[in-house]
Amino acid sequence: MKILIAPDSFKESLEALDVCHAIQSGFSQVFPNADYTLLPMADGGEGTSAVLSYVLGGRWKEVSVHDPLMRPITAKYLLLPDATAVIEIAQACGLHLLTEAERNPVVASSYGVGELIADALGEGVKRIIIGLGGSATNDAGLGMLMALGMTFHDVNDSLLTHGGGALASLHRLDSTNLHTKVRETVFEVACDVTNPLCGLLGASAVFGPQKGACPQQVADLDKALSHFAATCAQHGYPECQEVAGAGAAGGLGYALMSFCNAQLKSGFDTVAEVASLSEHIADADLVITGEGKLDVQTAMGKVAGGISQLAKATHTPVIAICGSVDGLKPTQTNQFDVIMPSIQKIDSIDNVLRTAYHNIETTAVNIAASIKLGQNLK
Amino acid sequence: MKILIAPDSFKESLEALDVCHAIQSGFSQVFPNADYTLLPMADGGEGTSAVLSYVLGGRWKEVSVHDPLMRPITAKYLLLPDATAVIEIAQACGLHLLTEAERNPVVASSYGVGELIADALGEGVKRIIIGLGGSATNDAGLGMLMALGMTFHDVNDSLLTHGGGALASLHRLDSTNLHTKVRETVFEVACDVTNPLCGLLGASAVFGPQKGACPQQVADLDKALSHFAATCAQHGYPECQEVAGAGAAGGLGYALMSFCNAQLKSGFDTVAEVASLSEHIADADLVITGEGKLDVQTAMGKVAGGISQLAKATHTPVIAICGSVDGLKPTQTNQFDVIMPSIQKIDSIDNVLRTAYHNIETTAVNIAASIKLGQNLK
Repeated sequence: MKILIAPDSFKESLEALDVCHAIQSGFSQVFPNADYTLLPMADGGEGTSAVLSYVLGGRWKEVSVHDPLMRPITAKYLLLPDATAVIEIAQACGLHLLTEAERNPVVASSYGVGELIADALGEGVKRIIIGLGGSATNDAGLGMLMALGMTFHDVNDSLLTHGGGALASLHRLDSTNLHTKVRETVFEVACDVTNPLCGLLGASAVFGPQKGACPQQVADLDKALSHFAATCAQHGYPECQEVAGAGAAGGLGYALMSFCNAQLKSGFDTVAEVASLSEHIADADLVITGEGKLDVQTAMGKVAGGISQLAKATHTPVIAICGSVDGLKPTQTNQFDVIMPSIQKIDSIDNVLRTAYHNIETTAVNIAASIKLGQNLK
Repeated sequence: MKILIAPDSFKESLEALDVCHAIQSGFSQVFPNADYTLLPMADGGEGTSAVLSYVLGGRWKEVSVHDPLMRPITAKYLLLPDATAVIEIAQACGLHLLTEAERNPVVASSYGVGELIADALGEGVKRIIIGLGGSATNDAGLGMLMALGMTFHDVNDSLLTHGGGALASLHRLDSTNLHTKVRETVFEVACDVTNPLCGLLGASAVFGPQKGACPQQVADLDKALSHFAATCAQHGYPECQEVAGAGAAGGLGYALMSFCNAQLKSGFDTVAEVASLSEHIADADLVITGEGKLDVQTAMGKVAGGISQLAKATHTPVIAICGSVDGLKPTQTNQFDVIMPSIQKIDSIDNVLRTAYHNIETTAVNIAASIKLGQNLK
């Protein structure tokens, strides 16, 4: 029996690979001779490159770059064996790099993201996978584009400073020195938000406040980004400010589409494709996935839902092992053959999170034992 | 497929029959054509006669008797179709019949238990099953025996008053007027405690305090009960004060053994035999039991453990569905093929107890789905 184990991480308790090990450990106690494939999954957010590193190998590269306030830091990205780089933008411009007091999207820059991309281009990669998410910036990629060689000028032809606020003064942009390899390289962007660049659902309005913008700054930033997009359009760049995801990561989605010809895909689809998930599922007799919490919403969207869809397409049975389940029965959703929570007893959240490995392993034992019971009951 | 559903009640949340229905409802969603037998179980304690009523039919009889303080109350017992009565002593002498202030084992009487027995004898039963547990008395059955016609006299030949305290004055006992049918009737007593009548592990020392006895009263009661047993021995009654269970229900165990030739059995064994559990298990392809909480201790003793033992003897697969499970995997205990908790998410105890039916049903769906998956994976 070929069993594919492909769970998401359990947020706040277990990495996806640890979830794999717990499930395998439990199933092995009942089916010691089954053929197990461990394929930890991710949704394009934090931890995605770590998962792809486990699945595909490759090597990490550490690079000196600049953080959102242009202070030097070390960031890393993954180089896969097939000349692909995997970059998580939060490594260079993440909100976690700033203290609460330092948060200021008017000046925060995505420069470090451009430095990571430039380094990868220098490594000769043919494809760059970029995970958006967790950014402290709202500069529509101004800093990133600067790091890649573009220049941005005000009405006096002076160079713009960093940050989304500076875009209000933009008069002219120049791509003469844009890194030559940008146009030869495939950019795939993992992105689960669908916000446009500007407006009520845009980057500034929706994500600006959590990055430290006050209402007046939100209004100013929105206007500045709108002016940026208009100026780019005047210079002949694609008008993609309304495309779903343009407003992701403070407008990095917009810049990657307009200047790098990037394709935006859901985080899960990106990871699934890179990890050859469909092929693994087609080869399996049984698929086991999992998420920390499964409810009607997550069953539709994230990792477990995506895996369910692929497994159903090949009529492969699929089991979800979860931390907790909110009001879902397999007979109701038709997405999973089994949806099993793993909480063993009434306990505090802290204890439940702390005992996740043991609980998942025990649940895996019980599911495997039920399957074996069925094999003998036929 | 023949499925036997035989769970205990889930304490503080669901009656055993409701647990049966939840499990059947879940399994039926996956196996609509299976042949289900519902056999709610009990451990000889509260609810035992209700369970036997569901399983075997029969009729309830209400009787006017006396409570532990000799006040008139109405109590009921069950008359099974096979000329068997099922009496729970707590109906007539339960601690729940008294306020905290009224508790006093020095005077509390088991008279009402004797009245229930006498009524059943009047109904012409051949067998009386008595559930011990929950008594407010510590009179070694003095009241019960009085109600059945025996007389107890002090050194002046005056009749004793009620309560364990009165036994200190016992000089002579007379069975001339003992109900004639007592000796023709089989008494089976369901009893899960193993305490002797007297001493440090006796009725007075172990259970006296929770019935309201102060330390001096405990000592006096222990001495009085010991004097009772010695006097009975002088009169030729069996010396069974050291037999396990003699100290059950304030010494009712002793009196039932000595005067009614009762056999003491575990509550589960009693229920299992009356409900023909072994025969039902032998007829099943799969047994599903359950308990509110399963841990190493309960897995050994109570309903689920007993059912596991019977099922293992016939090599019938047995599943335990529980409220919560504390540190038990089926691969560790070898008692169950599957031990599945039913908690779906982190929640308060109140909510978990309140949603027990839904959680059990959902868990049953998932186990059934796993079994079906196994049938197709073979």
